[in-house]
Amino acid sequence: MEKVQPRTLPGFMELLPNEQIAFNEIKEKIQKSYERFGFLPLDTPIIEDAEVLLAKAGGETEKQIYRFNKGENDLALRFDLTVPLAKYVAQYYGELSFPFKRYQIGKVYRGEKAQAGRYREFYQCDVDIIGDGELNIIHDAEIPSIIYTTFKELGFEKFTIHINNRKILNGIFDEIGSIDKTTDILRIIDKIEKIGAQKVEEELQELGIAEKDIKTIMNFIKISGTNSEKIKTLKELGIKSEIFNNGLNELEQVINLIKVCGVPEKNVEVDLTIARGLDYYTGTVYETFLDDYKKLGSVCSGGRYENLAEYYTDKKLPGVGISIGLSRFFYQASKEGLIKSDNKSISKVLVIPMTDNLDKCMEIASEFRKAKINTEIYLADKKIKSKFKYADKLNIPFAVVIGDDEIANNKVTLKNMQTGEQETLTVQDVINKIK
Amino acid sequence: MEKVQPRTLPGFMELLPNEQIAFNEIKEKIQKSYERFGFLPLDTPIIEDAEVLLAKAGGETEKQIYRFNKGENDLALRFDLTVPLAKYVAQYYGELSFPFKRYQIGKVYRGEKAQAGRYREFYQCDVDIIGDGELNIIHDAEIPSIIYTTFKELGFEKFTIHINNRKILNGIFDEIGSIDKTTDILRIIDKIEKIGAQKVEEELQELGIAEKDIKTIMNFIKISGTNSEKIKTLKELGIKSEIFNNGLNELEQVINLIKVCGVPEKNVEVDLTIARGLDYYTGTVYETFLDDYKKLGSVCSGGRYENLAEYYTDKKLPGVGISIGLSRFFYQASKEGLIKSDNKSISKVLVIPMTDNLDKCMEIASEFRKAKINTEIYLADKKIKSKFKYADKLNIPFAVVIGDDEIANNKVTLKNMQTGEQETLTVQDVINKIK
Repeated sequence: MEKVQPRTLPGFMELLPNEQIAFNEIKEKIQKSYERFGFLPLDTPIIEDAEVLLAKAGGETEKQIYRFNKGENDLALRFDLTVPLAKYVAQYYGELSFPFKRYQIGKVYRGEKAQAGRYREFYQCDVDIIGDGELNIIHDAEIPSIIYTTFKELGFEKFTIHINNRKILNGIFDEIGSIDKTTDILRIIDKIEKIGAQKVEEELQELGIAEKDIKTIMNFIKISGTNSEKIKTLKELGIKSEIFNNGLNELEQVINLIKVCGVPEKNVEVDLTIARGLDYYTGTVYETFLDDYKKLGSVCSGGRYENLAEYYTDKKLPGVGISIGLSRFFYQASKEGLIKSDNKSISKVLVIPMTDNLDKCMEIASEFRKAKINTEIYLADKKIKSKFKYADKLNIPFAVVIGDDEIANNKVTLKNMQTGEQETLTVQDVINKIK
Repeated sequence: MEKVQPRTLPGFMELLPNEQIAFNEIKEKIQKSYERFGFLPLDTPIIEDAEVLLAKAGGETEKQIYRFNKGENDLALRFDLTVPLAKYVAQYYGELSFPFKRYQIGKVYRGEKAQAGRYREFYQCDVDIIGDGELNIIHDAEIPSIIYTTFKELGFEKFTIHINNRKILNGIFDEIGSIDKTTDILRIIDKIEKIGAQKVEEELQELGIAEKDIKTIMNFIKISGTNSEKIKTLKELGIKSEIFNNGLNELEQVINLIKVCGVPEKNVEVDLTIARGLDYYTGTVYETFLDDYKKLGSVCSGGRYENLAEYYTDKKLPGVGISIGLSRFFYQASKEGLIKSDNKSISKVLVIPMTDNLDKCMEIASEFRKAKINTEIYLADKKIKSKFKYADKLNIPFAVVIGDDEIANNKVTLKNMQTGEQETLTVQDVINKIK
């Protein structure tokens, strides 16, 4: 028979079992952290009517979308979890309780140029809090406590949640009468770490920004110090723009409330340069960086938006939320050695029968399972060496060898696969030891 | 702004949060049961190269497939989890340990005619054991113990795993020289419960089966009694076909080994009429029925196949596996009242601040969370009645009310939302009480 070459499409993550175990552990920890805060699970379809999914999209996003016909239907694969959430809340509005807190962990699809660490199919892990008509600003402070809890749960200690407020940026540009140039200015500012302040000023000049406005911008982005010092300096800038002062007021509230929410000050930083997308977020914005691995970029980002579902409903639905791009994070963090898959296993015990009395071996395997210990029984008819090799290759930490002698004495031989140590014990002793 | 009607495509399951919680509980129980037996997780892409995915497909399946182009690529959505497994094992053969035991729980896509309980996007929950070259028959007996453990875990007591062997059926048709009419004969036999034995005989006549062969077939399908009685009767039929006798021998071994694997006899039934697909399974086949809800059809099915990945590799890879069609099962079992979603919640506790001292309320919420109790804090600025209503609507079992008096006394008021009962307790007492 002619064979088809088995292969996986470029840009699609497919892991070996031990990597998958590591991946799932992280996914489960994120899920449990989100649930710890009472977020409700959603699982919307991956395929939606293209008209619904693209109600809002445009530009770059639309080009990346997987869109196709099936029969007479114009379909598309979701490219994020926010649009499906907007659709969901508009559709089931009457059956939901507000503030509506939901999480969703699922795959999304973007036909991007395939490159290392960029996936066309990838997991997003989102939480959002949606208000009906209004949403108290304290929820903007609740979000960092979710980020904090989640990354602590994932085993990280040194990470910083960067916080800004879009109104502050907009207010600055409003003040200098350049709000139409917002995109260009932000693009230039964004390069400051790479090209330096001097070059940024030059590029702003080329953009046609007046000298005194460049000074305002440069003074603004250079603001440094502790969070309260930054806020103090912002107040002293004497900017009149109402948008600016609204934003500053919100930022101050959020920073104060974050302390109330139990996030240590060292994990939070006012960062006046972050903006997150240009037309979506309207207030607080978040990015999260691992202190020693800043080059990974933001590992958890989001913000506040004024109106989630305006393309579907007249109801005003403000919200605030964050997303972890899990597939990319897993790829990068594994590469940096922050996630290790080498020693991962599902089974804790491999039962190795060295007797024809399989009944007894099966019975013992069942006892382990009843004690909630993941247990495999090696049933293939191989040499003992192959059986231990199997345990070794799968990183199974314990082998339980059962021979006729053991059965006669109501015991088993427990082998620690890491140390090679062996002891003969009762099943109950083995269970106690392993747990 | 003109609105797009928010809607979900027909044939796509989308649940309300309480239903989703119930769904996820079942999914997680299935996952944990599979892991208890040491199956390794896989998560293959939903999109595959069409050439790879359709290497084997044909006929009905191919028509249902979601297939489309993106750029120059001919892509398709997976329609089951078996083809991706075949691809995976062929592709990563050198890096896997055999017998390779994997589970996969994920969505698959079939553009079927939409109707109640039939989905175009649905979850399958698969386990398979793949041998390298050969696979000991004891694994055919291990599978029912996984089915048994899983359905017990899901809370079912009365269910029966029906077992047959394809070789017995093929052997019968081989014996009477009608192996080319297998499909038609099986289709007729399948109707016996609906149309009766008399009508089945007539239809077999019409098909051109000789009188004495009809007698053989009818004698065969009428075989009744306990499992060992059925096997005994099969032996006494005096059928010479080697295929038949191989199958009978395998069936007898499997039935004996199932007892060894700890599955009670009342949960296992030899059922000579089940066949499961016509060209895929080659040995043992399984179907599982809830005794009191037979009309749901088989809730867990599968079998043994000789060669998993012959379209991708020369390696012979025999396997045995089962699948639970979770979305359909959830729909049907909910409709029958076997799954209840009404009282489901994620949060165990809703903290209700009745004070301006939010710090203290947040701190208490954190203490609950540290004790692994899912806890929400109600932060919207509403009347107390609305806050309790929120807890009620979300089925949150406990409300913890914190006022200034409580804070002064280092206590909180715990309200049982079901009974209305209230007590004033320390936080630690509440934690102990809830856990």
